[in-house]
Amino acid sequence: MSDTPGTLYLVPNTLDFGIEGAQAAPLSDVLPLGVLQRAAQLRHWVAENAKTTRALLKRVDAIVPLAAPLQELSIVELPRPAKGAKAPPADLRPLLAPALAGHDLGLISEAGLPAVADPGAALVQAAHAAGIPVVALPGPSALLLGLAASGLNGQSFAFVGYLPVEAGARDARIRELEATSRRLGQTQLMIETPYRNAALLAALLAQLKGDTRLAVGCALATPEGFTRSDRIDGWRLRPTGLPADRPAVFALLAG
Amino acid sequence: MSDTPGTLYLVPNTLDFGIEGAQAAPLSDVLPLGVLQRAAQLRHWVAENAKTTRALLKRVDAIVPLAAPLQELSIVELPRPAKGAKAPPADLRPLLAPALAGHDLGLISEAGLPAVADPGAALVQAAHAAGIPVVALPGPSALLLGLAASGLNGQSFAFVGYLPVEAGARDARIRELEATSRRLGQTQLMIETPYRNAALLAALLAQLKGDTRLAVGCALATPEGFTRSDRIDGWRLRPTGLPADRPAVFALLAG
Repeated sequence: MSDTPGTLYLVPNTLDFGIEGAQAAPLSDVLPLGVLQRAAQLRHWVAENAKTTRALLKRVDAIVPLAAPLQELSIVELPRPAKGAKAPPADLRPLLAPALAGHDLGLISEAGLPAVADPGAALVQAAHAAGIPVVALPGPSALLLGLAASGLNGQSFAFVGYLPVEAGARDARIRELEATSRRLGQTQLMIETPYRNAALLAALLAQLKGDTRLAVGCALATPEGFTRSDRIDGWRLRPTGLPADRPAVFALLAG
Repeated sequence: MSDTPGTLYLVPNTLDFGIEGAQAAPLSDVLPLGVLQRAAQLRHWVAENAKTTRALLKRVDAIVPLAAPLQELSIVELPRPAKGAKAPPADLRPLLAPALAGHDLGLISEAGLPAVADPGAALVQAAHAAGIPVVALPGPSALLLGLAASGLNGQSFAFVGYLPVEAGARDARIRELEATSRRLGQTQLMIETPYRNAALLAALLAQLKGDTRLAVGCALATPEGFTRSDRIDGWRLRPTGLPADRPAVFALLAG
């Protein structure tokens, strides 16, 4: 134990997870130089995925040389959520040992900001409980970029995560979200596994009312990113296909 | 009219609005170089505030020289929301004339991402209606940084804006948000005018239950930024003061 703990830095990742080559955005397009410099200094990491973290740090190293060789960094993966709803939550305090010993510690997920629509919140909560300062570094968030580019209500919005996979439950949830949106004037944001993008879009077009607005932001913060925002009756007249291998954010606002 | 319209770029601003000198973050700590390069190219802007836009562009110019002198840029302010609830919304299409003529156009607010907890969404919606591509550029968002650093639920959250100013209505709204949070397991995010930070914090500590979690992120993405996250009974035991001249984000999650 050190008298002064290190800081837990929440380090944003790019949004081009799974996108290779020319379609990946240059790192300097999506992450501030100061964030790259901070990441290059960190020798202790907790990661959603160690392999993708090493891949990002290689890209960082090409712009800001890492303070220690990649193979000497400590990268520990977050425990995966236990299947079985009643499993006790994992004890995350051991992951904070470097910070308690006085070293700065990075938390990073596979894409975007850790602990937002991603694992990591429990570790952040454990850090606060242990008196470890927490600093979130600025970077891209597909949710916020999708909301901003939607033109829908950005003064009141909710992120509701994934919809049910089973068609009946999913359709009922869509109608419930539309009713909530109408009652509160609140934009509803959701995400889906890319290979289900087309099915979710079809369900939204089938279930929502014609004057409800729907925006889809796809592959945001990459060179092929686009956002379409229109009333449902406009979507029905002129459908837009969605790729099955690119992340998308869906936003709806009842008319 | 050009055959090919320009793009409407949503350009993030820093979060150090109103913070002077050494307490402002270096631009390269909060904005990607690619965003600075894009901003430096834009000759046509729609802004929440022309003066603060010019101040930011001066800081950009010190890193990436502007393509045209500052005084030659076109910076048009968004119309302020009409007082009087029944006033018709302003016609925003004239603001899009540069994009319809084929020029790229920037939209920028005083802090953070435009059209999120800020004006601009109506312009974005008008752009979609006019067939103008919309691209949101990555940058800091106090809401998302505050949520990430809170350790509260980032898989389900709502941003509810400002609370009522009048104490009775504000307290009722706090209890309503706590009930919603408990029912949905949803983190509730809110903001307040800085000089009311202390009053809002006092009201939250008075109204919320002891096992509800409250996080406050203050002056985020600046050198003096901090986040405290604790149960309400912990806050009551060890209160933290909030500065009256720094923006803060408040997040609560019922226990």
